[in-house]
Amino acid sequence: MPVNIVRFEHQNRAQWGAIRSNLITPIPGEFPTTGALISAGLSLKGLDGGTLALSEVRLLSPVTENQQFVCQGANYRQHMIESGMDPDVKTYNMIFTKAQSCISPANTDVIRPSMVQFLDYEIELGLIIRKAIRGPVKVTDANLHEYIAGAVIVNDYSARDVQIPQMQFYKGKSFRTFGPVGPHITLLDAGNIGVLKELQLKLTVNGETRQQDSTANLVYGPAETLTELSQVQDFEPGDLIATGTPAGCALSVPSPAKQRIGALLPERKKWEIFFKVQSKRTQYLKPGDVVEASIRSADGRVDLGVQRNRIVAGA
Amino acid sequence: MPVNIVRFEHQNRAQWGAIRSNLITPIPGEFPTTGALISAGLSLKGLDGGTLALSEVRLLSPVTENQQFVCQGANYRQHMIESGMDPDVKTYNMIFTKAQSCISPANTDVIRPSMVQFLDYEIELGLIIRKAIRGPVKVTDANLHEYIAGAVIVNDYSARDVQIPQMQFYKGKSFRTFGPVGPHITLLDAGNIGVLKELQLKLTVNGETRQQDSTANLVYGPAETLTELSQVQDFEPGDLIATGTPAGCALSVPSPAKQRIGALLPERKKWEIFFKVQSKRTQYLKPGDVVEASIRSADGRVDLGVQRNRIVAGA
Repeated sequence: MPVNIVRFEHQNRAQWGAIRSNLITPIPGEFPTTGALISAGLSLKGLDGGTLALSEVRLLSPVTENQQFVCQGANYRQHMIESGMDPDVKTYNMIFTKAQSCISPANTDVIRPSMVQFLDYEIELGLIIRKAIRGPVKVTDANLHEYIAGAVIVNDYSARDVQIPQMQFYKGKSFRTFGPVGPHITLLDAGNIGVLKELQLKLTVNGETRQQDSTANLVYGPAETLTELSQVQDFEPGDLIATGTPAGCALSVPSPAKQRIGALLPERKKWEIFFKVQSKRTQYLKPGDVVEASIRSADGRVDLGVQRNRIVAGA
Repeated sequence: MPVNIVRFEHQNRAQWGAIRSNLITPIPGEFPTTGALISAGLSLKGLDGGTLALSEVRLLSPVTENQQFVCQGANYRQHMIESGMDPDVKTYNMIFTKAQSCISPANTDVIRPSMVQFLDYEIELGLIIRKAIRGPVKVTDANLHEYIAGAVIVNDYSARDVQIPQMQFYKGKSFRTFGPVGPHITLLDAGNIGVLKELQLKLTVNGETRQQDSTANLVYGPAETLTELSQVQDFEPGDLIATGTPAGCALSVPSPAKQRIGALLPERKKWEIFFKVQSKRTQYLKPGDVVEASIRSADGRVDLGVQRNRIVAGA
């Protein structure tokens, strides 16, 4: 079974631990960042300190806020269609970022700012970088474990009324608490990294299933994404890549055909219609809603855990 | 006169210094990041060590790669029009990011990757954050100096053939060397921060003026931008905000009216036309071109220096 790593606060100190039989075995040493922990190349075999119950600690995000938070957009075929894009003419891997300060513990209360009307969820498989990338590399399924240390659940919460009309996704996806990460990082190695292609994602709102898909349906997989991005930018150990969300979001975007007609309208009119359509979507999150996200392999051997977020009204 | 601060390598060690009479006075102490230097609240009055000639050192970017690189888009009225946007219906402050690894010294050679055809320049005023922002704050012209430590030249190099068709700006603006910063940070205080509203920007390519404007024409100024972004995300000392570029880029985008007609075309056809139009623009940068960018006040008292980049062909 792969090892699951948590970061937690206990006795006012941030620490790391490995989860075994639902108990935390603290990892000795000081690792201020996810990158420091990953770079240490820790061996978990000799871990034999005392254990802590999960109830005794406060879980933190296992990705620290110094790490890059790079995201893929429209990376599941069905989500592309519901986002008004034609998967057959999209020939690129859409990349954007979220502010690092939106990184939050898995079970955080998600704050809907008062100016946001259309708060949406996006369950995503997150990849944790193992080693620094400082120039072009050729990543394949055979060497993927050299570049990816593990996987984690990410929920890419999005204020659609900011994200969509403002064209660049960054601001509408970067509000504080909009990036729950965890509860744990599942460390992967050469023997089991292939599971990244067959993880089951499921998201519910108040118990009702909204998103359910398999990473088998990712359009741009981890190896080709890293190969391409290595031609553009550097990565450091511990950096996070969120790989996009499946269909089932609250957002409703007109079909490409309707969008073409919409493009003939003056800007103001176009956005008036957008707001009117969205305001009829009861799927948008309201204070009090509870969102649960889980990712695991069908056989349960690889289990990234469960995130549970309550939506609360912000100032 | 405001103090200009440089980061440089001398005897294989990265150091900071103040520029006086074209000589560098090294600043004692270890400051691994721009944030560490700014947070130290250094007093430059007592600096009296030896001096170094600029020719003895290799200048580094005065913004280190750990800092956030947040950018405003379409923030000068004329640039909005040339970018195919209608300034009268744009009612938001467009925000995106560049990868931190694209931060480069002011006089870096800018590498045009072999897959990039349409490399463009964008001179921008960069703002350096003075103190951490961890929640909503009300920034005004009266307290702006509490939040902004200084100003710096940024050139937001952009691969238009990646940025524009891929919709999200991040990737096309994040290639290594696409973010020269410097040569120095001009520290500002309550007495002179008002100059941010009256700086003259000028960019030339092979000596020919391409961009020339004043920060008086910024649509969203520093105070309102920080006020808004403080409602979204955190900032740390030393973080960089690039405030957008004036008109005069190589990019040619059809008018809003023509865009509406273009929207009726199938995606493939639309981008075929885009590539055809751009390929006639001789303004795009070619290997061998030299780009110079300068920002200063009309009276020369505040001078952010000059960036000089040679374009070279990448792999």
